[in-house]
Amino acid sequence: MPSYKFQYFDVRGRGELCRYVFVAAGKDFEDARVVREDWPSVKPSTPFGQMPVLEVDGKRLAQSQSIARFLAREFGIAGKDSWEQALVDQYMGLVDDMFKEAVKAFFESDEKKKAELQKNLGEVVFPRFLGQFETALENNGGKYLVGDSLTLADLAVVDCFDTPVQNFPSIMDKFPKMKAHREAITGLPTIAEYLKNRKRTDI
Amino acid sequence: MPSYKFQYFDVRGRGELCRYVFVAAGKDFEDARVVREDWPSVKPSTPFGQMPVLEVDGKRLAQSQSIARFLAREFGIAGKDSWEQALVDQYMGLVDDMFKEAVKAFFESDEKKKAELQKNLGEVVFPRFLGQFETALENNGGKYLVGDSLTLADLAVVDCFDTPVQNFPSIMDKFPKMKAHREAITGLPTIAEYLKNRKRTDI
Repeated sequence: MPSYKFQYFDVRGRGELCRYVFVAAGKDFEDARVVREDWPSVKPSTPFGQMPVLEVDGKRLAQSQSIARFLAREFGIAGKDSWEQALVDQYMGLVDDMFKEAVKAFFESDEKKKAELQKNLGEVVFPRFLGQFETALENNGGKYLVGDSLTLADLAVVDCFDTPVQNFPSIMDKFPKMKAHREAITGLPTIAEYLKNRKRTDI
Repeated sequence: MPSYKFQYFDVRGRGELCRYVFVAAGKDFEDARVVREDWPSVKPSTPFGQMPVLEVDGKRLAQSQSIARFLAREFGIAGKDSWEQALVDQYMGLVDDMFKEAVKAFFESDEKKKAELQKNLGEVVFPRFLGQFETALENNGGKYLVGDSLTLADLAVVDCFDTPVQNFPSIMDKFPKMKAHREAITGLPTIAEYLKNRKRTDI
């Protein structure tokens, strides 16, 4: 069994999906959280001046989605064949599109514009993506996004709605399949246990 | 042999990498280019209102990077094992980071801001990524980004610098390994033949 060290900021952000993969697979890992004040001194030691970084048996890997995919392959939840992997990837791409929109609002410095962008996220952007994932679930029988068992895609979708649900608690009310999917995945024993103790952060 | 239909706008943009994969692997595909005027009528027929879309034997896949990865797996250039795949993915992630910065400038509506962003791309952003890829090539022996043969990562890096090189012809002068890598990959017979006849577009 390889030893895993996962290095990221002390938030969910772009790193939480990787943590979800470890948790869902029941695998131990070192959750190395870098506080903001330490980042300038840590940064030069990372492969591309970014986190997250995964260290596995002395080798290092950067980029959140590549780490999540690698771990998913190692733990058998990347999709059962190349086509399932492609569909998982497709949903990871959609999740990334949604992240990009959310990040735009997060980093907007003009307070008035920021409020407008946030409102638009809650009223337009998130519902649009919810509708797309709702349809995807419906087309695949409602329980999982890809195939007939848990994959990285399910975790990615749960993860990307953690912050929207925190900020807009009723956002899934019109999307019953997404709501049921979220309840099912977050109710898996390993994940439920993890969430019970997870530190609350803004992002 | 499956039959492939690849649907995208009549530009390079987010679709060209998939075309590169077909070309490098010497595989036939239908290059279905949708002109801007037709997009509103085509859009509802796509899985998520986006292109590119790949159709393979009646099944459809969205999202440029998932299509590129799927094709790379089918054609044997996705990386030789899970770790190589992870490294390929890592570079795809970096390429995507660079795309995001370029897109920001492309879609800026304020002409003055746009000019500033473009200048910053040429002087700061592209050189930063060039430096990272230069180091990556150096650490892997200089010829390929991952392993000892052509992978999707090499094509992704060539592709993402097509527009920068078009707009800033001398941008690689200080990055000899990246320049040599670009010359080697674009000089592969299948790719060289394709590039000879490729339509010139802004993006």
